[in-house]
Amino acid sequence: MTPLSLSELTKSRDATLPRILILALLHISLTRPCRDYPAPQPVSPGRGFHSAAGLDEPPKRELVRYLDAEHKGLPLPVLPRCIFAIWYIKRTPRLFEAVIDVTNGKIVQHQELLRDFHGPVDRTELSEAANVVMAHPDVDKELARLGLDKSRIVLDPWDYGVDGTDTQARMTQHSDSCEHVLTHVKVFLYKKNPKNNDVDSSHYSFPLDFMVTVDLCAMKARKIIRLPLGSDESVTQGNVGQPDSDPAEPEYDILFRRTLLWRFRVGFNWREGITIHDVHFMDRSAFYRLSLSEMFVAYGDPRSPIYRKGAFDLGNVGAGVTANNLQLGCDCLGVIKYVDGCVVAADGTPAPRPNAICIHEVDQGIQWKHTNHRTGKAVVVRKRQLVIQQIITVANYEYIFAWIFDQNGEISFETRATGILSTKPIDKESKVPWGTRVADGVMAPYHQHLFNVRIDPAVDGHQNSFVYSDSVQMPWDEKLNPLGTGYVSKEATVTRAGAVEDSLADGRVFKIVNPNVENRVSLTPTGYKLVPIRSQMLLAQPGSWHWRRSEFCESPIWTNQSIGRQGIKTWVKDRDYVVNDDIVIWHTFRFTHNPRVEDFPVMPAEIAAFHLKPYNFCEYNPTNDVPPSNQEFNKSTSYEDANKGSCCTTKGRL
Amino acid sequence: MTPLSLSELTKSRDATLPRILILALLHISLTRPCRDYPAPQPVSPGRGFHSAAGLDEPPKRELVRYLDAEHKGLPLPVLPRCIFAIWYIKRTPRLFEAVIDVTNGKIVQHQELLRDFHGPVDRTELSEAANVVMAHPDVDKELARLGLDKSRIVLDPWDYGVDGTDTQARMTQHSDSCEHVLTHVKVFLYKKNPKNNDVDSSHYSFPLDFMVTVDLCAMKARKIIRLPLGSDESVTQGNVGQPDSDPAEPEYDILFRRTLLWRFRVGFNWREGITIHDVHFMDRSAFYRLSLSEMFVAYGDPRSPIYRKGAFDLGNVGAGVTANNLQLGCDCLGVIKYVDGCVVAADGTPAPRPNAICIHEVDQGIQWKHTNHRTGKAVVVRKRQLVIQQIITVANYEYIFAWIFDQNGEISFETRATGILSTKPIDKESKVPWGTRVADGVMAPYHQHLFNVRIDPAVDGHQNSFVYSDSVQMPWDEKLNPLGTGYVSKEATVTRAGAVEDSLADGRVFKIVNPNVENRVSLTPTGYKLVPIRSQMLLAQPGSWHWRRSEFCESPIWTNQSIGRQGIKTWVKDRDYVVNDDIVIWHTFRFTHNPRVEDFPVMPAEIAAFHLKPYNFCEYNPTNDVPPSNQEFNKSTSYEDANKGSCCTTKGRL
Repeated sequence: MTPLSLSELTKSRDATLPRILILALLHISLTRPCRDYPAPQPVSPGRGFHSAAGLDEPPKRELVRYLDAEHKGLPLPVLPRCIFAIWYIKRTPRLFEAVIDVTNGKIVQHQELLRDFHGPVDRTELSEAANVVMAHPDVDKELARLGLDKSRIVLDPWDYGVDGTDTQARMTQHSDSCEHVLTHVKVFLYKKNPKNNDVDSSHYSFPLDFMVTVDLCAMKARKIIRLPLGSDESVTQGNVGQPDSDPAEPEYDILFRRTLLWRFRVGFNWREGITIHDVHFMDRSAFYRLSLSEMFVAYGDPRSPIYRKGAFDLGNVGAGVTANNLQLGCDCLGVIKYVDGCVVAADGTPAPRPNAICIHEVDQGIQWKHTNHRTGKAVVVRKRQLVIQQIITVANYEYIFAWIFDQNGEISFETRATGILSTKPIDKESKVPWGTRVADGVMAPYHQHLFNVRIDPAVDGHQNSFVYSDSVQMPWDEKLNPLGTGYVSKEATVTRAGAVEDSLADGRVFKIVNPNVENRVSLTPTGYKLVPIRSQMLLAQPGSWHWRRSEFCESPIWTNQSIGRQGIKTWVKDRDYVVNDDIVIWHTFRFTHNPRVEDFPVMPAEIAAFHLKPYNFCEYNPTNDVPPSNQEFNKSTSYEDANKGSCCTTKGRL
Repeated sequence: MTPLSLSELTKSRDATLPRILILALLHISLTRPCRDYPAPQPVSPGRGFHSAAGLDEPPKRELVRYLDAEHKGLPLPVLPRCIFAIWYIKRTPRLFEAVIDVTNGKIVQHQELLRDFHGPVDRTELSEAANVVMAHPDVDKELARLGLDKSRIVLDPWDYGVDGTDTQARMTQHSDSCEHVLTHVKVFLYKKNPKNNDVDSSHYSFPLDFMVTVDLCAMKARKIIRLPLGSDESVTQGNVGQPDSDPAEPEYDILFRRTLLWRFRVGFNWREGITIHDVHFMDRSAFYRLSLSEMFVAYGDPRSPIYRKGAFDLGNVGAGVTANNLQLGCDCLGVIKYVDGCVVAADGTPAPRPNAICIHEVDQGIQWKHTNHRTGKAVVVRKRQLVIQQIITVANYEYIFAWIFDQNGEISFETRATGILSTKPIDKESKVPWGTRVADGVMAPYHQHLFNVRIDPAVDGHQNSFVYSDSVQMPWDEKLNPLGTGYVSKEATVTRAGAVEDSLADGRVFKIVNPNVENRVSLTPTGYKLVPIRSQMLLAQPGSWHWRRSEFCESPIWTNQSIGRQGIKTWVKDRDYVVNDDIVIWHTFRFTHNPRVEDFPVMPAEIAAFHLKPYNFCEYNPTNDVPPSNQEFNKSTSYEDANKGSCCTTKGRL
């Protein structure tokens, strides 16, 4: 199509065009604040109905030229401002797109699209669709069956997706008829909380057993569909009531929490540093003991005498022995509780480790948020964590270890590797494939930091099992998976002590469960999920001394019932039966640290964390009842207000 | 050996025992604060020399009984306090261990260990070893060769590791001779910064070309070894000087930074929400454009009508259209700069999105720390980040997206999934393998959230290549890898547009490099590393409509030169040559969300972040010169001080 000028457009009688005229006004919104925009223009109904529109960014070729000029302080080339728009003609499936140059007042591109293109969902149309559902007599019948009147119903319109129906046909066809699924939405129905019938109650706790499809093009309800309620695809028809939903806690903004959720003991020893004991969440046992048990730093330079370099920083040095004296306002900020440690000096006398552990709370952003888009009601709860931290200095390197307890029941172990690279000299011109030149004349060899954490669980008691659960595709099936979109979780229990393989491709999830205690909501065993740090294992050759000395570095996950004497692989040699028993799990993870120049002369912390998350342990979200975030308590300041006065004034106001 | 009482021990003349008497005093440190401990007892030299000692935790069987009683408020059983100790007899390789019950005053266990057991390193011995090195005449000769005197030298003793020498012999042998490598350490030598010769200068920037091995048992230097300086194992012998090290910035606590490091533009549109443009770090170009480009939420319930459920939350809804109005003191805390957005309503008029973006700084713990253990000097720099955040509400779900700019040159994109699960009704007794009962009568189907981020790099200009680098074992080699501990990085350039596979087992690292610009320190191309979120890809069956519509969900990494029209797989069909060209990279990652009961009625945020990190882009750590953390600025409070006054007093003091 030939580009038209705006004045030509004004004169045109083509039904697809008037909307573009209004869109052209949009360029004002690009040059002045949105709120200053003039009152909306009246729209003639039944004509072009826009689906989406916005800035069409300049081509990279042109923008690069502009930015280059800007960076160099040269005169700036003129870039025409363009708008990209996509719209339907209302009551037809005809979809158009256009690019409008508002600087030069012309249409750069304008075409009708094939039927296999979709426009984005339009919120006004969705509201119309909801009205169509509410007005339909067959919906009245369904609601009567359930003993509900319309004032108690909330609707959730959803993108329809594709099921292949009519798809081949509409790929080629250019009909104006609405008779295809292109513009359908599905509308799910819920009821308000029967206890208060409030518009802001959480209706997702009360799903109804039927849904309605609506054709947005014809703006008509097409089908009322009953949902399957059991374990297969079968659907009960006829005049039956749906099962009552009676959730333990249906609402997400109940504000009664005044107590803390965690209880545990902190220990300290020369070898492991921090140890965590007898961990209870919401007065229920979760873990018997947690600790970092070893760290192996294995270097990759293959040459004498560096080839032997490999440090066991816990067993051979000690995370307690090397604990830093943590300083107020430096190592942790806020209100800090310090705990002293004590180790033993070489002459047998006690060697104090003052401030070996700092305990404090941090705000970690948002724990959860939801806005009811129907009413605008938003609730935000902050993510408050209790951090038990220590820092160790092992010659050149520092490690920052933190056990983090979240109000949501999650325990994280975070490792930060910082400090200084162990360096070797290198001559002017040489490069090596096992190290990086990090400064002139200075080479830092590649190395791996392999950590091993010992997890002694006690989920609702000491009889636990270790299981892993994969997410796997369902096979195509005419009855149960006709669209090929289904997937299920497939669970396996680890029956014998030993290494457990990970599988990223299967989305493998590791769980510690108590097979003797059932969660009365999920009807499954209570449990905690282990979210591992997925990483490469030891690179030293099998049979090498590095390899022989670090049995734990061969596999990411190990299980056993008890501690042996020589190494993890030896301990599990007997392949003990470990189901529903007093088990222990070890998790190995690493940083493969092939240094960057940016890591020298001191290294920005490399950070990794694994997590233990309640998994069907509670009966609802444990942070449901944490008081929501509010300005009265948090006393934040807008940038503009903060910069009105002097620095001191600002501080006073904060 | 038969347990001895403490009084028997006192009388014994066995050289292995006197140390234990002193250790027994340790129990005091378990019951009173470390600092209150009486002055050290004099130690007879040449007798037992302890290696490590500390609390021997009670057996689990007994401790569980104790904890059970405690939890129930019953009388507590008595648990004897025990000490575990391990020690050498000085000047011999004989190693012993013992458990001493200090409650009942007896030795529970006491044995000499086989020669293949090592005691932990003893810091006093390491200091003695350093003295031995400094006193050795051959070391004088080496220093003379390098024109250095001893006052300029710093020593780094290191765990020796194992090279197999004599290993089989000492496994069985019980000799008192020191003639084996069991107790050797290696001592690396460095010089102080020649510019200031300060004891706290960073000596790791000035490594010397030789090292010394010391036998801790005999406390004698054994060998002086020259280090290889080139690209292979060859070592220059004779009276040659070592190459001078002349680093661009050898020190890690230079405090001159007064400027900010980042410069970029923030954009906003109806589809992607936040867009980031023209990113410069330290006045050098890094990225042309960054944005979240799509999200697909694919549900796994295989049954009609839910099998069709799959939402494209950007393309079909829009992250700009659904942007929340962010509130002071709720969505971000601190000093906040808000940016308004503007989209277009269905009738063509502008629809303001006030406070669509909030910009603020956060403290993310420690950026780096190092303590010089010789002098106790500690430097801590905090990790300060600039966060560009938005939150969107797509019907039931919320997503919190943040582009995070760190002072260390790293850009992170963090995703938090929160809000409410889309639910279906389920009858009283049923369970399904494609969903979780999250409340009575309420089932939440499994689903995947698949995100795709578009990365348009401009590392030192627009001509870039995409490479991946694996860490791979070196083969055993008599000359170059005789111990089998070596590993190297192996780099491959992506030459053709298409999907790039990940490899966790190879520790694969993805890099965007500029082959035309060499880092003058590393002598390699300047670059940025992509640290992906490693995750399972789409589970829907190949050929299904979910699969056909979401081409980006098939592979974690994609490359191409330009944008096509139908989907990522289509765009790369031509397999364009993409080396040293204007390339684009797409990264796909997912949450496979098989709901937990804890995710209902509102979901604690599921968090994931990927990172873009400078990789041999700078000439040294860009946070080297950030002013260190100090209490004067940070004004933290000890827990005890904070709780002295009332709540209000505390706040006033903070």
